[in-house]
Amino acid sequence: MKSHEIHLVKRPNGMPKDSDFALREVDLPEPAEGQALVRNLYLSIDPATRPRLTRGQELNSVVGGFALGRVLASRTPGLKEGDIVRAAYGYREAYVADAKHLGKVDADPKLPLTVYMHVLGGAGFVAYGGLLDIGKMKSGEQVFVSTAAGSVGSLACQIAKLKGCHVIGSTGSADKVAWLHGIGIDTVVNYKEEPIRAALDRVATKGIDVYFDNVGGDHLEAALAKMNPLGRVAVCGMISTYNDQQIGVRNLSSIIYGRINIRGFVAPDFMQLMPQFTEEMTGWLKDGAVKYRETIFEGIENAPKALIGLLNGANTGKTLVKL
Amino acid sequence: MKSHEIHLVKRPNGMPKDSDFALREVDLPEPAEGQALVRNLYLSIDPATRPRLTRGQELNSVVGGFALGRVLASRTPGLKEGDIVRAAYGYREAYVADAKHLGKVDADPKLPLTVYMHVLGGAGFVAYGGLLDIGKMKSGEQVFVSTAAGSVGSLACQIAKLKGCHVIGSTGSADKVAWLHGIGIDTVVNYKEEPIRAALDRVATKGIDVYFDNVGGDHLEAALAKMNPLGRVAVCGMISTYNDQQIGVRNLSSIIYGRINIRGFVAPDFMQLMPQFTEEMTGWLKDGAVKYRETIFEGIENAPKALIGLLNGANTGKTLVKL
Repeated sequence: MKSHEIHLVKRPNGMPKDSDFALREVDLPEPAEGQALVRNLYLSIDPATRPRLTRGQELNSVVGGFALGRVLASRTPGLKEGDIVRAAYGYREAYVADAKHLGKVDADPKLPLTVYMHVLGGAGFVAYGGLLDIGKMKSGEQVFVSTAAGSVGSLACQIAKLKGCHVIGSTGSADKVAWLHGIGIDTVVNYKEEPIRAALDRVATKGIDVYFDNVGGDHLEAALAKMNPLGRVAVCGMISTYNDQQIGVRNLSSIIYGRINIRGFVAPDFMQLMPQFTEEMTGWLKDGAVKYRETIFEGIENAPKALIGLLNGANTGKTLVKL
Repeated sequence: MKSHEIHLVKRPNGMPKDSDFALREVDLPEPAEGQALVRNLYLSIDPATRPRLTRGQELNSVVGGFALGRVLASRTPGLKEGDIVRAAYGYREAYVADAKHLGKVDADPKLPLTVYMHVLGGAGFVAYGGLLDIGKMKSGEQVFVSTAAGSVGSLACQIAKLKGCHVIGSTGSADKVAWLHGIGIDTVVNYKEEPIRAALDRVATKGIDVYFDNVGGDHLEAALAKMNPLGRVAVCGMISTYNDQQIGVRNLSSIIYGRINIRGFVAPDFMQLMPQFTEEMTGWLKDGAVKYRETIFEGIENAPKALIGLLNGANTGKTLVKL
């Protein structure tokens, strides 16, 4: 069987370009004992891919990332044809993998399949664990979320609201501001219309107890200037630094008297929360308490465009590529 | 009774100058009921004073700071003439204060009085609690301490050694390097002879589990580049940023995959450790297991010089002014 995949052929200098990538056709082997053949349905396009393009990702190999796929053929007892699986096999149409690398998804038939790539997948889980476990968020606190209209950010905003907090979100377009107001976020600032530091000075009148950081750089500086004593910064991402490593944070000394905690994290830090997260988030989705948007590109050849659109802020909500 | 005190008369631009301060003579009132009159013996000169000169400290008022003094007259039952007290009444020869602001010191007669201003005072306590409580330091870990020959830094280095860790210290002169080697610090780097980032690359071959930060800026950047996963940065001070707020930290995004915790702290965060600290440190001092150096200026009029010498690295060990 043939498959197409996206390879990195040139390390991007700043924002990635289409020409940094190439579409390659490959022949897939037959699955061996203990393996399965998977046809991907949706690729997840994530900001964290960007730093790996500079360091970590090999040239002339497939770009890494998660995808949701359907089993076409199985030689492992745990999986059968038609099963839905989630795996980190990168930007490919299809692949053969050992069963241990394939996470079977028990998709609720009342929910669209794509939510298992974001609201009920990694994006939702890092928002949930980032706030509750890393950020030690408590009801009634002041919460600030950057890239608030993004896949992770919009879920962080909504989880914080559902848990009884006052939420400030920052985003970069009037459309995103309007959408965030529409889903009930208390205060939304547009960092492209007003410097983020001035905006937070204006709106964060009760300070910030928890900053869920997806941006770093100027947003982190602005948040540090408003943190309440014993505040927590849960660092999920620093998209501002991915294309340009020169953005420095100059007011870190404010964490001393503020006794601020800044913690970088990844989802494995709080895997113990997974059952609780899945149950709570499935309920919120079915009740309509959690909203989301998706930007869906079609065809493996458009995966680089999808990534570039994500990095330059053109996409709204979760970015996916439908295959 | 007359007293002399040092007032801030001009906010320093960068490194403070003698002319930013003035010596003023004042008349002290008689102590009222519940008060005591205290004659200071030693002023503690601390880096944390510098940022307050820019913001927080009023102009034409006494420069804040801790001192150790002797009670000359008391109208409070808890204190009597001759008692030794520690208080935060700033750069003054003498003062009258409410008893609740005076901390009685039960000085061990076998130890010099000055140790209650550093090894058994705030410097020792922040080193101890910063490593054990904030830094969660465990035996066998790799520990990096900046301003390693300073009052706090040299105690942090020695506590980490006594607790079974491998210790790297950074300092800025050959004399300080030699002294740190002499007291048994495993590896000492001179950041004035080799950029700190290159130095840590060379010597931190097992990475860093706990960074006790007194410097911020380039030292924090260099440490972040070498932190082991789940490493902790306990931020006690950021002396590099006190005179120049423009030093930014550009590699903060490394904390995400490293799951690094950066925590600013002050001594009240771990007051529960005080009895344990006092007992353990008194024992170490009496055994000769903990060494220290002091730079002692004489006379209230030299307090600004003492502070400037501390900030430009000219002093060694704890800086005090003897009155």
